[in-house]
Amino acid sequence: MIIDKLIETSVAKQNPTVIGLDTRIEYVPEHIKRRYFASGIDMKMACEAILEFNRSIIDAVYDIVPAVKIQMAYYEMYGFYGIKCFNDTARYAKSKGLIVIGDVKRNDIGATAQAYATAYLGQTFIDDGVAQNAFDVDFITVNPYLGFDGIKPFVDACKAYDKGLFILVKTSNPSSGQVQDVVTRDGKSIYQIVGQLVEEWGQDVIGQFGYSAVGAVVGATYPEQLLRLRQDMKHTYFLVPGYGAQGASAEDIINGFDEHGLGAIVNASRSIICAYKSDKWSKAFKPEEFYQAARCEAIDMRNDIATAMIMKR
Amino acid sequence: MIIDKLIETSVAKQNPTVIGLDTRIEYVPEHIKRRYFASGIDMKMACEAILEFNRSIIDAVYDIVPAVKIQMAYYEMYGFYGIKCFNDTARYAKSKGLIVIGDVKRNDIGATAQAYATAYLGQTFIDDGVAQNAFDVDFITVNPYLGFDGIKPFVDACKAYDKGLFILVKTSNPSSGQVQDVVTRDGKSIYQIVGQLVEEWGQDVIGQFGYSAVGAVVGATYPEQLLRLRQDMKHTYFLVPGYGAQGASAEDIINGFDEHGLGAIVNASRSIICAYKSDKWSKAFKPEEFYQAARCEAIDMRNDIATAMIMKR
Repeated sequence: MIIDKLIETSVAKQNPTVIGLDTRIEYVPEHIKRRYFASGIDMKMACEAILEFNRSIIDAVYDIVPAVKIQMAYYEMYGFYGIKCFNDTARYAKSKGLIVIGDVKRNDIGATAQAYATAYLGQTFIDDGVAQNAFDVDFITVNPYLGFDGIKPFVDACKAYDKGLFILVKTSNPSSGQVQDVVTRDGKSIYQIVGQLVEEWGQDVIGQFGYSAVGAVVGATYPEQLLRLRQDMKHTYFLVPGYGAQGASAEDIINGFDEHGLGAIVNASRSIICAYKSDKWSKAFKPEEFYQAARCEAIDMRNDIATAMIMKR
Repeated sequence: MIIDKLIETSVAKQNPTVIGLDTRIEYVPEHIKRRYFASGIDMKMACEAILEFNRSIIDAVYDIVPAVKIQMAYYEMYGFYGIKCFNDTARYAKSKGLIVIGDVKRNDIGATAQAYATAYLGQTFIDDGVAQNAFDVDFITVNPYLGFDGIKPFVDACKAYDKGLFILVKTSNPSSGQVQDVVTRDGKSIYQIVGQLVEEWGQDVIGQFGYSAVGAVVGATYPEQLLRLRQDMKHTYFLVPGYGAQGASAEDIINGFDEHGLGAIVNASRSIICAYKSDKWSKAFKPEEFYQAARCEAIDMRNDIATAMIMKR
């Protein structure tokens, strides 16, 4: 099962992190951009430049991280060329043995959720026994606001095609509490109710480590809620954003792990892929060496979390 | 403002409905499919067939309806060719004077919501003063689970580019209540709390009819909630799904309108675009006349709602 593969790869690489390829053209160094923009400036060329950037980052980190997360929003900015770039990036990452999380936060009512599940996790029927993959990812993120009939097609596709989900429970952004922290008549918060639902929704796809292919997104920027959900959601793996550019520390993140050091995979995006622009690395690396800066920052992130884990024990 | 244009066009055409182009290749009649699949079967050919189908539907209804809604899920099933088809469909509809609603239900944290807002409502920066549209739609749907910092970039884009939103409040699906109907400590349901937030979020973009460019999705399958939200959300236009294939009647839908017959636009998708396959129309029209069946069903829908409105007064 894909959740087992994620856990095994994280353990083998001693690294429970995932690098977010939230690439936009502004992040691509001049020496690459100038090559693609030599004969003009358009979305197709921008996407070719972004793809080269992504491939370089993947080449620089694939031996140290188990997975990459590709944030669809940054690719949709470039229309259908962006979608092609998303797909090419996903396939390149898989060719390097990485697990790919498509961060798409899709959601809709049953029949339409089925179409999204087919697009990202299944196979699209074309005609007369011909079916093709629209996208090629291992996990996607989904939004729970519509309830289970909007989730079930995704869970069914996970079973049929050995894929996984991370369902939004408590997100890392400042105003996530506006809906998620509302307290119900029973004294629970909405994020706790959703967390409970996610535990139920994933009960048929539990792998050999006791974790389900139906995971949850829980932000590290709310360490107390992260700790509480870790205790309440025994079978749910967490995708934990918020480290790095969003301000959460390794100490905050530790709350997402169980007593065996499993249960969570921590994402950082801009702090890794834009490391070459940071005060920390811009003196050590030229823009042409952006991928080496990314590798160094990815190693620092791994070590930072490992140290915090040891300190906690 | 685009919300004023939607209202004016609905009034001019005496038709507060929108046709959902939820087209999948299975809906396209054989005579079209066989032409595109003459030399093979793949996603690119499927999308060309879907585009021809969509253009025929648009040609058959553009003079009687104010708007079309294009459901992104059905296009993402065909990868980046599908995205191109979504875009070509949107542009063709606009060339016929139709308002286009992109039903994409996007959602993310602030910085990433900004990328989605840029993609659908704004312009993507490429390089050196070059910016291009990734998509060309007038309204999109968005999901509120992440709170205001995930919504603000969309609202800002509405102001800057004269676009509109429909934010999910109470969706039409059977299990929408799992999260949306949870009762809070104050005795309100989550959908009421979200409804109140949507009213606030839209207060800076109110047009000449008193309705905001920030609208809401409220399903007709829950007529009591629709009535209550109509009373509570005085400045919010409703996109009302659930009519037709999902089972809501014209009587259910009436609750979404104000005393002037404004305040809502009602969507039907499969019942219109697949009318030629229905018991009601399949004897009158051959599959080659699918677009005429769609026109007849669109007219019936308009008249059905008009009758129910008169009966109510």
